[in-house]
Amino acid sequence: MDATPVWFMRQAGRYMEEYRSLRKKHSILELAKTPELACEVTLQPIRRFPIDAAILFADILLPIEPLGLKLSFSPGPTISNPVRTDKDVAALREATAAAELGFVYDAVRLIRRELAGKVPLIGFAGAPYTVASYMVEGGPSKNYQRVKGMMTDRPDLWNKLMLKVRRVTAEYLKAQAAAGAQALQLFDSWIGDLSPDQYRRYVRPHSAWVLKEISKCGVPVISFGTGTNGFLEDFAEAGGDVIGVDWRIDLDAARKRLGKRPVQGNLDPVLLFSNKKVLKAAVKDVLDRNGGRKGHIFNLGHGILPTTPIDNVEAVVNWVHELSAR
Amino acid sequence: MDATPVWFMRQAGRYMEEYRSLRKKHSILELAKTPELACEVTLQPIRRFPIDAAILFADILLPIEPLGLKLSFSPGPTISNPVRTDKDVAALREATAAAELGFVYDAVRLIRRELAGKVPLIGFAGAPYTVASYMVEGGPSKNYQRVKGMMTDRPDLWNKLMLKVRRVTAEYLKAQAAAGAQALQLFDSWIGDLSPDQYRRYVRPHSAWVLKEISKCGVPVISFGTGTNGFLEDFAEAGGDVIGVDWRIDLDAARKRLGKRPVQGNLDPVLLFSNKKVLKAAVKDVLDRNGGRKGHIFNLGHGILPTTPIDNVEAVVNWVHELSAR
Repeated sequence: MDATPVWFMRQAGRYMEEYRSLRKKHSILELAKTPELACEVTLQPIRRFPIDAAILFADILLPIEPLGLKLSFSPGPTISNPVRTDKDVAALREATAAAELGFVYDAVRLIRRELAGKVPLIGFAGAPYTVASYMVEGGPSKNYQRVKGMMTDRPDLWNKLMLKVRRVTAEYLKAQAAAGAQALQLFDSWIGDLSPDQYRRYVRPHSAWVLKEISKCGVPVISFGTGTNGFLEDFAEAGGDVIGVDWRIDLDAARKRLGKRPVQGNLDPVLLFSNKKVLKAAVKDVLDRNGGRKGHIFNLGHGILPTTPIDNVEAVVNWVHELSAR
Repeated sequence: MDATPVWFMRQAGRYMEEYRSLRKKHSILELAKTPELACEVTLQPIRRFPIDAAILFADILLPIEPLGLKLSFSPGPTISNPVRTDKDVAALREATAAAELGFVYDAVRLIRRELAGKVPLIGFAGAPYTVASYMVEGGPSKNYQRVKGMMTDRPDLWNKLMLKVRRVTAEYLKAQAAAGAQALQLFDSWIGDLSPDQYRRYVRPHSAWVLKEISKCGVPVISFGTGTNGFLEDFAEAGGDVIGVDWRIDLDAARKRLGKRPVQGNLDPVLLFSNKKVLKAAVKDVLDRNGGRKGHIFNLGHGILPTTPIDNVEAVVNWVHELSAR
């Protein structure tokens, strides 16, 4: 069928009973670090819905453990030894970190074998800023005071940190592609809190470096960020074959600003809690704003929320295919 | 001196020792409900810095108590009887609520007398969406799932709620102006999480109604919202003499999109933790992006954070005046 492809960020997750049942027995890190379990979780939504891509089950913070950080989930991520000083940055083991994530590459190989060509597999990593912000803040943050402070008051230290983080990020993604990932997504979940100037000065050079490095893998690259409205053109200039946007922008406005670049998005994940009539109208609105153009991948503006009704997820997949059929 | 005027959202707050010392003896609600204390707190930053306006010390949730809700701070606001059903909305006492906030109007009169014309006094209220989102969610929210759900799945109920909230909001602001407030600001702190479509459909009509009502007061009105990048033109169309923007947009881009409309903003509050060199460059960047045009009020992109170093606040006031002197 020639229709707009659709997949969902966090499509393997708590909204699925089969996922919750596995989570009763295993922590998130156990799931992510055991190739058979990561494969099982990755495939759960593929068995349920006619979605057009699988996305590797993993966590964007996996690379920080081999860098030397102590990560736990309670339930949000917490890092007991955050990176704040020259000594902390110097101690990061960036040369060997990507090689220590073999369980991820094993999962990629296993998933590819199990998928047997049914749908492509997307690999992913957190973008350098988002990963570094967790590393510096020690967990999620309200105002990103520490990470912004390092940028502005210690740009030399910030740069050293980002050089290390970006190296791991690129090597990690290249290894996923080498293991069989057929597309790669770079997730910059927290850049929306930056001013355009902060993004351009302290973040874009490093994202652009990663995007250039992984462009050599020969697979399509999706560059996704939330809250990029204030610097969308700059964000797109950093690279990526497809630009992912959140729900805070009209899709037609995003397409206009991005020119011919393919776009991914952008239904508000909260709309998946609405009734079917509202939800269908919202799906149609996104498609209408795309206006039948090629180069649109339907997705949410961020990940599926944990208590989302599963039949609404299924309905969205079907509506996207029906309403966009050419 | 002919220079860009400057004041700060939450300029009376925990970053000041004299405020913290009063807060040891009184709760936020006690401060806000006792005209002498509200006056004292309002004047504290005026005594310290050569800022160009005083802003009434109050809380955007004050009007929800006379509406019938039970509000406490622990330390964030919590509402023990949130508004979720037809019965909850029907029970709201919007006809009498604004009249029950006499302590605010008394504070306005007292502050005006104490200021004795030194600087103008700005009154304020939360915008209908932000206040309603607290009322429905019962406190701050991560995803605004309940309030968005009411909008989309019960637009009739949402409309009834917003008609009540907007009435109180307009009456409350009119009474502040009648008591002597020389400008009014409508704060829409949480609209940045809405999609442009949600804003236009469920929020703008009610904000526009309030802005039109209070335009009759004969004082300038500032309409401030965070995260309005995706619908700034729509936000401006709703009304207000001055449009306040956060730090997630370049000020020159905002001015371009807003045409001749005066603008307020937009330094990232987190930059007030940076060293003086960085902070001064950031202040200069905002002023440079304004490009010497009239119609700019310097402010932060949101409120001053509680642990902000006070000498940085003072430095910003002085730099704005020096660097913009004509």
